[in-house]
Amino acid sequence: MITEIAQFDIKPGAEAEFEAGVKKAVPIFERAAGCQGVDLRRSIEHPNRYWLFVVWETIEDHTVGFRSSAGFQEWRKLVGHCFAAPPDVQHSNQILSFG
Amino acid sequence: MITEIAQFDIKPGAEAEFEAGVKKAVPIFERAAGCQGVDLRRSIEHPNRYWLFVVWETIEDHTVGFRSSAGFQEWRKLVGHCFAAPPDVQHSNQILSFG
Repeated sequence: MITEIAQFDIKPGAEAEFEAGVKKAVPIFERAAGCQGVDLRRSIEHPNRYWLFVVWETIEDHTVGFRSSAGFQEWRKLVGHCFAAPPDVQHSNQILSFG
Repeated sequence: MITEIAQFDIKPGAEAEFEAGVKKAVPIFERAAGCQGVDLRRSIEHPNRYWLFVVWETIEDHTVGFRSSAGFQEWRKLVGHCFAAPPDVQHSNQILSFG
């Protein structure tokens, strides 16, 4: 299991539209192969910055499976026009955790 | 409940020392007032980049309580020398989640 960490800077004024787009996209992630969960968070200090955390069974479920799927096209259609810049997308392994 | 998102770029070669420092610091966070949990993640694409996610009951539990505590001094003593740059620290609210 890995977690995709995508950071989005949203055009000022497009925040509500972006959030609505992510909400509409939930079923896309729910049916994406290998997707285990999604968490959307908004920065308190920079309110037009968001992070989307997506848990995938393998990194390829995201980079190969999802990105080549029709779902990815739908996802970008729902939110892509809200981006102020290309998203910064990385993947991460858990090192430790409590709580 | 808010989540602190701290991004650390670690000096090349100091990654194991940083991870060991965070492990040693777990009791500091466990006893910090308002701290509900910690998750340390490492970037797959940039292996000297880490994110520490800390769940706090309120933002002030971090920015006022923790930062003025002896625990914060101990924490920085354990890991501060591993930083390649000042950490990027923000706080976030959850917008949506599933899974």
